[in-house]
Amino acid sequence: MAEVPVPECLLKPLYVPRKLLMGPGPSNASPRILAAGALPLLGHLHPEFIAIMDEVKKGIQYAFQTKNEVTLAVSGTGHAAMETAACNLIEPKDVVLSVCTGIWGERFADMAERQGAKVVKITKEQGQVFSNQELEQALRRIQPTVMFVTHGESSSATCQPVNDLGILCHKYGCILIVDCVASLGAVPMYMDKWGIDVLYTGAQKVLSVSPGASPISFSERAWKKTQSRTKRVTSFYFDMTGLANYWGCDGQPRKYHHTGPISSIYGLREGLATLAEEGLEQSWKRHAQCADMLYRGIEEMNLRFLVENKEFRLPTVTAVLVPAGVQWKNVSNYVMEKYRVELAGGLGLSAGKVWRIGLMGYNATPDNIRLLLRALREGITTEQTRIPSRL
Amino acid sequence: MAEVPVPECLLKPLYVPRKLLMGPGPSNASPRILAAGALPLLGHLHPEFIAIMDEVKKGIQYAFQTKNEVTLAVSGTGHAAMETAACNLIEPKDVVLSVCTGIWGERFADMAERQGAKVVKITKEQGQVFSNQELEQALRRIQPTVMFVTHGESSSATCQPVNDLGILCHKYGCILIVDCVASLGAVPMYMDKWGIDVLYTGAQKVLSVSPGASPISFSERAWKKTQSRTKRVTSFYFDMTGLANYWGCDGQPRKYHHTGPISSIYGLREGLATLAEEGLEQSWKRHAQCADMLYRGIEEMNLRFLVENKEFRLPTVTAVLVPAGVQWKNVSNYVMEKYRVELAGGLGLSAGKVWRIGLMGYNATPDNIRLLLRALREGITTEQTRIPSRL
Repeated sequence: MAEVPVPECLLKPLYVPRKLLMGPGPSNASPRILAAGALPLLGHLHPEFIAIMDEVKKGIQYAFQTKNEVTLAVSGTGHAAMETAACNLIEPKDVVLSVCTGIWGERFADMAERQGAKVVKITKEQGQVFSNQELEQALRRIQPTVMFVTHGESSSATCQPVNDLGILCHKYGCILIVDCVASLGAVPMYMDKWGIDVLYTGAQKVLSVSPGASPISFSERAWKKTQSRTKRVTSFYFDMTGLANYWGCDGQPRKYHHTGPISSIYGLREGLATLAEEGLEQSWKRHAQCADMLYRGIEEMNLRFLVENKEFRLPTVTAVLVPAGVQWKNVSNYVMEKYRVELAGGLGLSAGKVWRIGLMGYNATPDNIRLLLRALREGITTEQTRIPSRL
Repeated sequence: MAEVPVPECLLKPLYVPRKLLMGPGPSNASPRILAAGALPLLGHLHPEFIAIMDEVKKGIQYAFQTKNEVTLAVSGTGHAAMETAACNLIEPKDVVLSVCTGIWGERFADMAERQGAKVVKITKEQGQVFSNQELEQALRRIQPTVMFVTHGESSSATCQPVNDLGILCHKYGCILIVDCVASLGAVPMYMDKWGIDVLYTGAQKVLSVSPGASPISFSERAWKKTQSRTKRVTSFYFDMTGLANYWGCDGQPRKYHHTGPISSIYGLREGLATLAEEGLEQSWKRHAQCADMLYRGIEEMNLRFLVENKEFRLPTVTAVLVPAGVQWKNVSNYVMEKYRVELAGGLGLSAGKVWRIGLMGYNATPDNIRLLLRALREGITTEQTRIPSRL
């Protein structure tokens, strides 16, 4: 006899309201991608599923602009890909340089420390990015074996240039790991040309897919470092040697490694197909144009940006400074209650100081921007009227 | 300009055929659960999503028959839950006893070794299980701090009794981890009553949900061991301290930990709701009755079972010995090609020697069993006619 009774709440229907997700992610999935989530399951080693995995692999190679054989999707959300990078590339003997332009560098440093490595962080003031010259100085001074950089920093809304950064790292005998979770598909990214050794992203940003399977790719240099470890990878689930075999990247017959997230892989396939149909150049252009339209609207409202230099702004996430006398949360609540639109707050150092507006994939359209600007303007006006004058 | 061109294969539609998955999992998801996969996304910290997480937590507590506060779903497939158990409960100073009745004990031993612990395995002959007496002897001899047992061993099709096993472990100052991936919902399980410290399962077996979020629960004893570690957990993604906060299990305000797999959580909620509606006792009874019906059909075909003692058979996975002169793969191929029914082969030691027939959740119905038996009979006859007589 069951001693813990049936929970009442599970006898009611599942309640999922429709919202327009204009925060830093997840963004809304397109109807095509949502439909893939309702397709029947296949076995994780069935030939039809392996064909889909192969398509996903090719789609990631295109999105990353890489020919790397070791290219696959990790069975987890963006953090899982970050951890895959950390636990495969780092062991206690490594020196890790984590470049911090927001919380993601901090997060990677945390993961690297858990692998027992010596970790050095360099940190930029909120809303700023590093020059390649500054990074080269750090490489010379710290002599890391692994450097981590966030391309699209969703917490500070900055885009750290990584052009040719891998080539620079290699000059100093260092592996370069780049997080492009928030930037992929919106900002040019050339993994091979720029010499990036490990690149990963998430599903729920520009790809507009429900999170659950996260693209990652290893260069030959990264793969060699993984294969010449002195200690085993601390994680079985994220061990790239096993994953590369399951994904058919090592030329050996595929063996059962773990059960893949079937429906998440369907969704990722459709997200990558949507990007392939639009084409990378067009997707980059659309995100730049949408960001410009948003910037103009924000400027017309006399609001200011956290990232002053437009060149360093991340088009997918715009951080708008909350004006004096306004409670950010009240405005976000207003916008959600009246328009069912998500307008996010800050994260990390930017918490309480900014709104973060997301323009990603399926959601990056002029109509959505117009709606968001109208809602934001109304929200601020309502809030300014509500709060007692400070004269 | 993109240098890696658009992959042709992504410009074609996604192809997912409909199959009846009668292997050891994934099983088919019900229409209700598939529909949940197409629901719009929510933010991973939106109040409506947190309400769904709370429902999932209550559903797991019911399915596990536990009142443990630290009960949640890990953001990955079944292996991710296994790794969460390993990396939180084990550090280098631990001695781990892994009880092997098939490949899952081996897998856990692998994970435990990666955490730097001393690992001892005890192994039963294929198709057999341990008595509590034998396990007590091992506890006395090895003096482990952590013992791992697989309840439903999908590779050998055995069900290892775990009744009161936790109470036994506690007598020897040992923590008990139980894998019920293949058994939950089909065989009685009383986490609290039996003193199990860590219990986890997958989504794609009896719950009939697409894999991607995996239930796990920690007893107070397991939680205390986690909180008194001398070394940090090697994984950030699987660190239960952060996860327990995100899932509202520690009484503190929820903080962002990682992005949860939104749609997988919807699916899991619907799978747990389906189990709650049927009721555990009825689900246990249905699986037992279906297994009995399958056993009768197999016996009528004069086929034999890998697990001779019916008492130790796992109702969700039945291993049928391949008769002499028959190639298992030819029969499986026949059944798939003609009926679109999955009839799996063996795994680990049982590879090549058995078919494994799954009866799980939505798929555990008399109609499916009749279809499978008919297809298997036909497949074997066809195969026996095809192969030259060995007279």
